[in-house]
Formats: sequence, C-alpha cells, structure tokens
Amino acid sequence: MAENRGVVYVAHGRVEVQSIPFPKFDNPQGRKIEHGVILKVVTTNICGSDQHMVRGRTTAPSGLVLGHEITGEVIEVGKDVETLKKGDLVSVPFNVACGRCRTCKEQHTGVCLSVNPARAGGAYGYVDMGGWIGGQAEYVMVPYADFNLLRFPDKDKAMEKITDLTCLSDILPTGFHGAVTAGVGPGSTVYVAGAGPVGLAAGASARLLGAAVVIVGDVNSTRLQHARSVGFETVDLSQDATLADQIAAILGDSEVDCAIDCVGFEARGHGHSGSQVEAPATVLNSLMEITRAAGRIGIPGLYVTDDPGAVDTAAKRGSLSIRLGLGWAKSHSLHTGQTPVMKYNRQLMQAILWDRLHIADIVGVQVISLDQAPGGYGEFDAGAPKKFVIDPHGALAA
Amino acid sequence: MAENRGVVYVAHGRVEVQSIPFPKFDNPQGRKIEHGVILKVVTTNICGSDQHMVRGRTTAPSGLVLGHEITGEVIEVGKDVETLKKGDLVSVPFNVACGRCRTCKEQHTGVCLSVNPARAGGAYGYVDMGGWIGGQAEYVMVPYADFNLLRFPDKDKAMEKITDLTCLSDILPTGFHGAVTAGVGPGSTVYVAGAGPVGLAAGASARLLGAAVVIVGDVNSTRLQHARSVGFETVDLSQDATLADQIAAILGDSEVDCAIDCVGFEARGHGHSGSQVEAPATVLNSLMEITRAAGRIGIPGLYVTDDPGAVDTAAKRGSLSIRLGLGWAKSHSLHTGQTPVMKYNRQLMQAILWDRLHIADIVGVQVISLDQAPGGYGEFDAGAPKKFVIDPHGALAA
Amino acid sequence: MAENRGVVYVAHGRVEVQSIPFPKFDNPQGRKIEHGVILKVVTTNICGSDQHMVRGRTTAPSGLVLGHEITGEVIEVGKDVETLKKGDLVSVPFNVACGRCRTCKEQHTGVCLSVNPARAGGAYGYVDMGGWIGGQAEYVMVPYADFNLLRFPDKDKAMEKITDLTCLSDILPTGFHGAVTAGVGPGSTVYVAGAGPVGLAAGASARLLGAAVVIVGDVNSTRLQHARSVGFETVDLSQDATLADQIAAILGDSEVDCAIDCVGFEARGHGHSGSQVEAPATVLNSLMEITRAAGRIGIPGLYVTDDPGAVDTAAKRGSLSIRLGLGWAKSHSLHTGQTPVMKYNRQLMQAILWDRLHIADIVGVQVISLDQAPGGYGEFDAGAPKKFVIDPHGALAA
Amino acid sequence: MAENRGVVYVAHGRVEVQSIPFPKFDNPQGRKIEHGVILKVVTTNICGSDQHMVRGRTTAPSGLVLGHEITGEVIEVGKDVETLKKGDLVSVPFNVACGRCRTCKEQHTGVCLSVNPARAGGAYGYVDMGGWIGGQAEYVMVPYADFNLLRFPDKDKAMEKITDLTCLSDILPTGFHGAVTAGVGPGSTVYVAGAGPVGLAAGASARLLGAAVVIVGDVNSTRLQHARSVGFETVDLSQDATLADQIAAILGDSEVDCAIDCVGFEARGHGHSGSQVEAPATVLNSLMEITRAAGRIGIPGLYVTDDPGAVDTAAKRGSLSIRLGLGWAKSHSLHTGQTPVMKYNRQLMQAILWDRLHIADIVGVQVISLDQAPGGYGEFDAGAPKKFVIDPHGALAA
Repeated sequence: MAENRGVVYVAHGRVEVQSIPFPKFDNPQGRKIEHGVILKVVTTNICGSDQHMVRGRTTAPSGLVLGHEITGEVIEVGKDVETLKKGDLVSVPFNVACGRCRTCKEQHTGVCLSVNPARAGGAYGYVDMGGWIGGQAEYVMVPYADFNLLRFPDKDKAMEKITDLTCLSDILPTGFHGAVTAGVGPGSTVYVAGAGPVGLAAGASARLLGAAVVIVGDVNSTRLQHARSVGFETVDLSQDATLADQIAAILGDSEVDCAIDCVGFEARGHGHSGSQVEAPATVLNSLMEITRAAGRIGIPGLYVTDDPGAVDTAAKRGSLSIRLGLGWAKSHSLHTGQTPVMKYNRQLMQAILWDRLHIADIVGVQVISLDQAPGGYGEFDAGAPKKFVIDPHGALAA
Repeated sequence: MAENRGVVYVAHGRVEVQSIPFPKFDNPQGRKIEHGVILKVVTTNICGSDQHMVRGRTTAPSGLVLGHEITGEVIEVGKDVETLKKGDLVSVPFNVACGRCRTCKEQHTGVCLSVNPARAGGAYGYVDMGGWIGGQAEYVMVPYADFNLLRFPDKDKAMEKITDLTCLSDILPTGFHGAVTAGVGPGSTVYVAGAGPVGLAAGASARLLGAAVVIVGDVNSTRLQHARSVGFETVDLSQDATLADQIAAILGDSEVDCAIDCVGFEARGHGHSGSQVEAPATVLNSLMEITRAAGRIGIPGLYVTDDPGAVDTAAKRGSLSIRLGLGWAKSHSLHTGQTPVMKYNRQLMQAILWDRLHIADIVGVQVISLDQAPGGYGEFDAGAPKKFVIDPHGALAA
Repeated sequence: MAENRGVVYVAHGRVEVQSIPFPKFDNPQGRKIEHGVILKVVTTNICGSDQHMVRGRTTAPSGLVLGHEITGEVIEVGKDVETLKKGDLVSVPFNVACGRCRTCKEQHTGVCLSVNPARAGGAYGYVDMGGWIGGQAEYVMVPYADFNLLRFPDKDKAMEKITDLTCLSDILPTGFHGAVTAGVGPGSTVYVAGAGPVGLAAGASARLLGAAVVIVGDVNSTRLQHARSVGFETVDLSQDATLADQIAAILGDSEVDCAIDCVGFEARGHGHSGSQVEAPATVLNSLMEITRAAGRIGIPGLYVTDDPGAVDTAAKRGSLSIRLGLGWAKSHSLHTGQTPVMKYNRQLMQAILWDRLHIADIVGVQVISLDQAPGGYGEFDAGAPKKFVIDPHGALAA
Repeated sequence: MAENRGVVYVAHGRVEVQSIPFPKFDNPQGRKIEHGVILKVVTTNICGSDQHMVRGRTTAPSGLVLGHEITGEVIEVGKDVETLKKGDLVSVPFNVACGRCRTCKEQHTGVCLSVNPARAGGAYGYVDMGGWIGGQAEYVMVPYADFNLLRFPDKDKAMEKITDLTCLSDILPTGFHGAVTAGVGPGSTVYVAGAGPVGLAAGASARLLGAAVVIVGDVNSTRLQHARSVGFETVDLSQDATLADQIAAILGDSEVDCAIDCVGFEARGHGHSGSQVEAPATVLNSLMEITRAAGRIGIPGLYVTDDPGAVDTAAKRGSLSIRLGLGWAKSHSLHTGQTPVMKYNRQLMQAILWDRLHIADIVGVQVISLDQAPGGYGEFDAGAPKKFVIDPHGALAA
C-alpha cells in the first residue's frame, strides 16, 4: 500500500501519469498534522480549470500533481479525527479549509485564511492554492477531515450513483453557486454563458432552483448540441445574430432575470469572426447587456490575477475593459470567486440521492482509467461535450 | 351587462347562488374610486378558508358574497388605471392591497394598512377583511388595479393553462409561502401537515424549490391516496403509529429539515381515537417534535382571533396550548400570517407557463358551473380530494 | 497548580464555593481529547439562567459546578490546537460546539449535534446541556478550542476593557441575537421585555443596530430606574396602565416595529395585582399585541421543556397558552432558542474595542471575588440592577 | 401663484436662475395625470451628480431645469391621491417611480420600468432620466404621489430638523445604500472613498449601522479636515503612501471588512502626481486591494454609459480597465446602481427625528437662497466641504 501513482503536469500541453509518494499526514510546510485522513481515491475528475494550467495560462510549476475533484474511501484516520472511520465513503470539497478561521466560520470556505500562506483560499493540486497535493491519483491526504469531508450515509447506495455524486466535489456546487449568486429562483429566466461541464451544472442547478427556462450559450456547436439533448435552450455565439436577439427569439424578451458566467478569462469574442479570437471581457460585457435592471450576475468562471498567456499587457495582470457604466445604469451586482463547496454539497447530495438531479447525464460523465487521463485531458481540451471521471482503482469498472 | 349573480353565505352550512348588484367603482365605505377595474370572472375557486365561514367557525354575517380566488378579463377600467386595458386576462391576488402604505411598500401586501379599517389586511368576500365584495360571481371589482393585478402576457396561451393559472390567486402562492418561510431549498426534507389543496400546493412548491423529498400527512385516507398518486410520500395520522415513527420509516430519520402547517385551527388529534376529535394545537406541537434543531416552521394554515365554535374558552379567543419550551430547545422559528401573494405570483406564473409545475393535476382541479357551487362546497367539506373551480360564464366548458 | 475551586449548586436556593478537581482534557463521557485548552479564568459572570437552576426550576442535580460566562487566559494547549498558545486572552462562547457537524457548519452553534448526547446544544455548567464542567471557578477546560475561542488581539488593551469584554461570552450576544431576530435596524422602534442584564444588553444592541428608540419594560422599579439612567425609555408593568397605552404615551403609536422577550418562562403578570403572580405566557401574548403587522418577535428569554416548579400541569411540560390567532392575524414570526454566540462575538468585540459600546455601564457590572459569589447570587435574585462578574484570581482587583 | 423660478443648466460651467412654467399635472409625454401633487419647495439641495452635467460630462441639453433633492409642502392634490392633503410636509425621493411595475413592486424603485421610455429608472431634473422637471425651483410636480412621497408625521418638529431631513431625498439614503450593499454591520471596519457629501453620508450611515471604525479617503485636504472634525478617520490620497499602508497605520491591518465607492467615474489617481489627473478605474481597483476576502464593495458613486469628456475612447463608452482577477481571487461582490431611496428613507427619518443622526452637521449643510444657487454650484465644484441647501421661499431663513 505504500505506492501511489498520479497525474502530473510536466510542461505546456503535457501531463503524465507518474509514480508519486504515498500520502503522509504532513501539511505543505512539512508540519505533522493529526486532523487528516488518507483516502483511497474512488473517482477523481478532470476539471476545466486544470486545463488553464496545462495550456500554460498560469504559473504552475512542472511536477505539480493535479486533481481537486476527489471522492474516496477512508483508509487511514488521524488521531484528532472524531467523526470518520475506515471504510467511510466521502466527497472532498475542492477547497482546502481549516474550519477554525474567521472566513471558514462565516461559511466562506473558498477563502480560508489558514491553509495558504500566499493568499486566501486553498485547493488540492492547483497553482497558488497552498501546495496541497492533488488527487488525480490512487491515494490522497485530506486535512481537517472532520470539517472538510461529506460522508455518504449509505455506501452501497452511493456507489450506485457514484457518477452523479462525483460531481459534488466541484462542478455541481460551482454551477449551483453561480445560479444562487445570480439570484435564480422559481420562475426565473436564466442565461448561462458556456456549455462546458460547469455551464451545464449551472443550468441543472438553475432548474433545481425552480427556473422557468435556462438558455445556454457557447461558440462550440458540439457542446450546444449536447446541451439541447439534455433539455436546455441554446444560443450559438459563433453566429452573427446578437446574443440579445437570440434570447429574444426564445423568450420574447431580450433580457433575462439572471445571468451566469461559466467561461471566465479565456473567453472568445462573439460572431463568425469574433469567435475565432480571445476577447477576455466579452462574456461579462454581454451579460450586462442581456441581464434585466436590478438583476444579478454570478461569475463562477475563473478570472486570474496573473495570466502569462494573455492577449495584452492589461490582461496579463488580470485587468479587463469592463463596461461598468452599463451595469451601473441597470443596478447590477456582480458576484465572483471560488465556490464555498461546503455551503451546498450536503443539500445537493440529498437531491441526487432522492433522484431529483441526474447530473452525470447532464454533464456527460465518461469514466476512464488513470492511464487514460492524459488522453482525457486532450479530448476535453478539444471541446468534447464530456466530463472525464478517472477511476484509478477500477472500482466503477468492476 | 348590468346584471350579476354570486355565491352568498346564508347560514351555517348553507350557501346559495343569488342575484347580486353589478360591481361599481366604490370602496366598502362608499367612496368613489378611479383606480379599479371591473372583471368578467373567468374562474373563481372554492377555498378551504371559505369553509371556516360556512361551518360557522367565524363571525361572518349572512348575505356575504363569497370568493377571494379570482381570475378574470378586464371589461371596465377606472380613469387612474395606466397599465391595463379592456380584454386583458388577469390573476387577482386574494389580498386587497393599496400599494401606497408602509407594509405594501415593504412587500407585505397581506397586511396592507389602508384597505381595512378594522385591522391590517384585506381580502375579497371574507369576514373581518374589509368588506370587499367577493368574486364567486359573474363580475367583480378590483381596486388599485395597476398594483394588484397580474396580467398574463399571452391570453390564448393562458387560456390553455387556465386550470393551472387559476391557482395563482391563492393556494399556490399560499403553499409556496409556507414552503419559503419553512426554509425549503434544494435537498430539503419536508413535512407538510394537511393533504387538502393548500397542503398539496405546499408540497408542489417544495418540489419546485428543489426539495429532496416531501411527506404529506393527514387523517383523510382519500386525500392521502390522491397525494400518493401525484408523487408525494404520505403518513396516515389516523393510525396509531406516531408521526415521528412514520417519518423515520420513510427517511431513516425521525426529523425533517422543514415543516409546513397547512391545517390551521380546525386541526384534529392524531391516532385512531384522537383523530375523531378537534385538538387545535396538535399540528403545531407535532411539528416542533419532528422539525430538526435550527429548523423553521411555516404556518400558512389559518389561526383566528375569535372562534365561536371552538372546543374551549381559550380557543374561542384564539389561544392554544403550545409546547413552546420544546420549540425553544430546538431553536425553531415560527412564521405565520396571510400570504403576500404578489411577492410570488409572477414567478409562479412563469413556472406554469414554462411547464415546470402542473398544479391543477396536483391539487385535483374540477371545473364546475356557478350553479354547481353549493354542491361543490358540500363535497369539498366532506373531504373530497378536489379543488373546485367555478366557471361562471362557461368559458372553460366552451 | 493542580488545585481548583468553583461555585457549586447544592440545593434549592443554595450555592457554595467548593474545592473541585483541576480540569483535565477529557470530555463528559471520559474520552481523552486533544483539541482543548485549559484556561485560567480571568472573569466569569453570574447569569439569570443560572438562577433558574438555583431557584429549583430545573432538574439540575446537586453538585453541579456552575458557570457558562467565561473569559480566561490559556495555560495549557492540547496537541491538536493550532491557532492558540499559552498566554492568549480569550472569550469563551457559552455554547459548547464542535465545529464539525451540520448545524455548526451552518453557524447554528447553539444547537451543535455532537457535544450533548441527550439533545442538540451544549453549554458549560448547565443542566441538560451535555455535562461540561462550569467555569465559575479558577480553572476550566474548553474543548474544540480553535473553533470555540475568540482571541483578543491585544491583551493589555483587552484588560483595560475587561468588564465590557466579559459580556461577550453570553449576555451581549444573547441580547444582540434577540435584536437581530426581531428585525431591529436603523430607525426601528423597539420594545424590550425585561430590564435585567439580558434586556439591557438587548436594548444596547438595538441601539448599536441603529434603532431610533428603545423602550424597556419590567415590574421591578429599581431595574427600571437603572434602565432610564443609561438612556432607555421605560414602562412600568406593575402599574395598571396597559403596555400598549404606555408605549403610545412615548411613541404616539401603540405598536412598535420590533419586540424582544428577555424574560422567558418565569414571567409575572402585568398590573398591580397581576405582577404579584407568575403567568408564564404574559410576555409573549403582550408582545403580539404591541408588535406591528409583519413584525418579528425575538425570544432570547429561556423557555424550558420541563419545569418542576411551574404554576400548572401544562407549564410543567413547557406548554403555554399562547394567543397564536392574534400573532397570525398580524403575520408575526417568532424566533426562539439559544444564541449562537460565535455568529456575533467577533463583531461585538470590535464594537467594544473601538468604543462604540459601553456594555459594562449599561448592564451595571459589579466585580466580586469568587468567595463573594454566593452573595452575588442572592443579591441578583433579589432583583438588584447589577451584573455580577467574578474575578477568581483577583486579576481585576489588582 | 402661477409663477415659478428655477435653476437652469445653460452651458458647460453655467447655470442660471430663470423664470420657468408653474408645474402642471402632465407627465413628460404630455399625458394628463391625476396621481400627482404640486409642492411648494421648502428645501432643495445641490448634488454632486448635478455637477457632472454642469461640467459637461453628460449629454444634458441646455435649458434643463435642475434639481432632484426636494422637500416641500403639498399645495395641490390630484384626484387619485388618497393619502396626502394640502399642507403636508413631505420628502421626495430623487427616483421617480410608478409603484406599479415589477421592479417597483420588488423595492427596486431606482430602476422603475414605467417612468422613462429610454431606459430603466427616472429622476427629476436629470439627463437621460425620463424628462421629469427638476425641483431647484419654487414649485415642482411629483407624480405617483401616494407611492413616492414620505410624509413627516409632525410638521413643526420636522421644520426644526429640516436641514437634516432635507438629506433624505438623496445623499443620506445613497450613502446608506452604499454601506448596506457593502455589508456594513455592527463591528465592521469600513473604508469610504470620497469625502464629499455622499462619502460623509456613507460614513455616517456606517456608524448608524454599528461600524466599529470608518476611514474616509480623498485627495482634497479641506474635505479631509472636515471629515476628521466630524469624527472620521482619514487617509490623504494625494500623499505617496499607499492606501493599504495608510489603512494599516490606523487599523493594524491593511484590509477593511467593507468598502464604499462614493467617487464614481470622475476619479483621480492616487499619489502626488497621480492625483493631478483623472484615472477613472483608480477607486474600484484600489477598493479590491484593500477589501478583505469575501468582502463586498458598494458602489453608489455614479458610473455612466456615455461620457463625452472622458480621458480615452473606452471611458467615453463607460468602459474601464478593472482588475477583476484580483476581486475574483478574493471572492468579492460589487454592487452598483441608483439608490432605491424608498427602501430606506422612512427608517432614516426616524433616526433623525429621534436624534440618532445629525447628518446636517456631518455633511456641512449651508442654507442659501435660490438666487445664490449659481454661486453654490461654483463653490461646491471647487471642493468646498459643504452641502448647499437652497431655501427658495426663505422658509428657513425666517
């Protein structure tokens, strides 16, 4: 059991499965901790935000073990752990959080003040997020386990829905957070920018919250086709018809109640020619146009402080040309940041367990082995309408 | 057009369809108003709270024209009305509200300070609610029409869903208010006391809000059977198994996240013998038992200040023996009062129009003529699992 | 250092200072814990809820070490504690909370699910609250210390305001919770039932929240005089003028926006004769009368599930005759339960440290030695307008 | 009485007092309305946002009658008005709002959908806000009077505090809205950008909401001196010490809990040289730097959709280079838009009437005659630490 293998970022465009150390009860500063558990990873997903690193759009160092979407079985328990025991099946929120600082106590676990010396907020396997070792691996250590982990109440029933439940570690709560911060509720009309897995999860969340209608927009026709196949209205932004006109054709109104940006800083422009090039403020500016007065804009899509691959000097520092005057005239509010997964994951688990939400189908889960992970990265980067779920021990295949 | 007919409360147990005056632009104090419209009633529903009057459990005077659940077509428009015109199809919130007082401005239209000299809050066709003439009739006048009315955006499409949309005037928002004040959200486990139309609407609202599971309880087996047929879990309170045990059998936990009292002051006891007799505090006390710590209890069910037919002197004044110590130990909050329909009806209309909510099927709408109304009162009072919708002009029959 | 002395409940009406064991890192079930700290108690206050036990109104057993309002200096640190070190000066919320269960994660630390096998919610030195040893002592152990404790950022400055800061462990957050749950905000008119320390703290909190005017009512003229001397309006409920009339004389309106019950289950009646006898529902029923439509009623005052000394059989089980019909007609909501101190104590500490709140003067803090504690209990029970703060090591005297 | 005089915008840098028509019950489209009242103006204030027009930073046409901060006495009442009568003294929210559309019903009166054909939101005497005639005049017409106006309960008492109450029409609610949307509450540390009247009103509002400490920043040393004299901490942004360092010198922490932008689009840079030039994104970018993780940024300061006088092409369209990546990393939310005055003015009136808030002193009210208005515009534009209140009938002078 003292062996381990994981997905490692090697260089721009290149990830490899390598042997990595078996997890220890140490934090990234090398201090011994007693509040952690070691998990045998049951599922671990490839995330769009991993792609930012692999595409060289961050300062991620070579050798970083990837993976922040983790579901696993407890195999070792630290001495201070009180509520978990060997054999428990648990979902890991992607945020590493201490449960003891001010922001954690206020439910803002996405910006824990303790787990990352460099800034607020920690995550597994991610640049600038505190150095916690990633979980696209056979085994991983989770600190502050009593606080962080969500235990599934019935292990066998959970394994039956494991491709749904694996989405609880990140994309489902992230899409849900986008919908909640955008003010989605019963009867809302909702526009979701981006038909990737987070966009689809935002759409599914909007429906769970009672939205009347959800429209998903993208420039990728394959993803749009998948979105339609799972019940969303769509707009194709590679066409020259404006977003407002395409929305009006569906709703009879060119504005929606709520808008969610599930694209982030690598956005492309709109229209036949626009969609060929990166234009990082396009999504936010278009959302201010099509959101009603007094509406809210949820921004779960990632915007970064430093982007070495950006189109211009301002964008390299994370500065975008936002038409704030327009948003101001419409009394908009904008809601940013990492999702505090713990605020939502228990409720969403209940929705899955009671058959209210078939998120695996909606996001297009495809299960692959650990060795297939590099291929999954490539296919996902090419725009496949799929959510790749790594099954490092063959537990699902069985 | 100067003729009118309506359902009139005559005496305990007796309602009749009688000729009544055609509506005028006068308020109950006889003052001329310019802000009203006159509606040709398209649908008007019999409500459980009408039954309290007919059963002699209020001080309603003989001659009162009943009916506060009204959907209609505008046929006359007061001079100050700006946003409505003849031919518009509209839903009327059961609350009469001025839109100009403090509570209306704060969205508490259920306790408008202007429309009822005797106390806060007005309604059509109801004792102690300001003297506004009821709408179980061919025609009715609605004051402050720009503020009060919800216009359906497309008349033909609305008529296709009219048996759903007719529920917007009261029971659907009332059930929804119960769910909202009980804190229902995605993943909630919910218990609804009462399988009548408001209980079923509360259950449907809980589902729209994302509830994981909704359990409906009653002592009426026919109503429970109907509740199961539209997808709810049920508990039968005429059985001797406790409510907590029956909930535990469904959830594996004897407590729910959220509880909603859709019964009110005419509650019966629980168990074989208990359910034969009235026991007005039974529902509230049982809800404190089965609601989790830090949970909330929504109370859309009516409790009255004066009940001439009550079981004891205290109850005649609206005083009940509540086990508040239990609720306090569990940090409960209790949320009472008339639903402010306007806070919810637009959103719920959207949910209906976009096919998210088939409320007519859930509550068991049955359309009847105006002349069949007295029969409908009787059948409903006997516990039929139906919501009677009066069609005074045969508009639906056509 | 292995010695300790504390205030012990001996029998109805009798407390004594006795030798008690020095604290150990054990929970009440005898399990060794590593997440606790041992405090040298700097201040520990006598609370009105302690009096319920001493007056025999609970099932508290003889020998119970009292005290749940604790401020102290860390002198020993468990191995799992990460954020605290010897010498830190800290405030202890009266709730014992684990920080790892669902309710704690949702900020409802008043009903922690882990620390009390009998029911939700734990406290130090209190009957039915989990068996945690009280802190009216020289030394006390605090579990889950990283989660529970509020560290004062500057020890010397904190000692200068220690008589204010000692109120952070219970009465100030409790009064504040009452005000928050009653909906107090800028411009509110507020009525506080009870001129004891919690009532005064609720009044002070209402002012901090921006209330326009705060009226405090009681039957104790000495306490009312103190309340006036610190700037509150008052009503004397031992007089025969009704509460509504006395409020109208102050406000020109017989209703307030917000009402707070700081009396609880040992309430007396109103009026010359009424105030001579216990009448446990008096406060709640009067608050429904004088709270405006759509208003909220905060109930920090304690209501119990079992009261051996109650006036009647129903009250012995915590059942009171509540005029719920009146509250329902006014769309009131009622908010009960133990205050989750952690939700508020950091903010209130800031208000004290920046001189926005002189709570010691407002509640009448009087510092006494540990040996004077029994006398303090007696004087407080007799209705003195004082808050007794025990200084077990003479740290304040020095 | 059929005469009237008002302050008219003539050209860049020039306003004049001219004869203007006596108000009629017509809306800007010339339609007769019955829901309005005509006011004899008692006070009407010069606002910083008027200066944007006068400085040529908008597309305001010559001949526009200025003034949206109005307090007056009712002298004529439309036929549909029910709650007001001649002689009533009232405060006019600067937003014109109908009380009948969706956004008004949802309390977003700043973006009423009815009163401005061009976009959401109306105001008196302001470019692009619907053409409603301004109130820096002797007389003015207010539509939808029952909905819009706040009546002072006691006219004589109100006249004693008229220089405070005149702030209810705009700057006090606007500063308050900034504080509320920034999340200010008891114990908050708050930074306010801008020491003009709105900044001072935001600071005063933050104190009323319970803030522990309020820091006001500006580049104008006279205004900063005034801010200190009324009790705020200050930072001088014309100095080269960074904002973060100056805040750290006050708080011992370089971040605040809450930040409020009371400057808007005509912001200057920071530092000795920076403060000489306009740099429209400076304030927002600096607020993201100094606001804590999970903090909120309130933006009552005006940002426009079109600015003919802007420093660059992007800014002419209202686009600013915002470092959104930084805000995203800290999970900030940004809250923009016109203040919905009605949501707050009643409560703030109560705070003034009960002596909780001496806003006239804080903002430096100086009363002038109508003929002195052009001089007031000039002095205010030059940065005087004053709020000019026009007294067109000499009612205050008397």
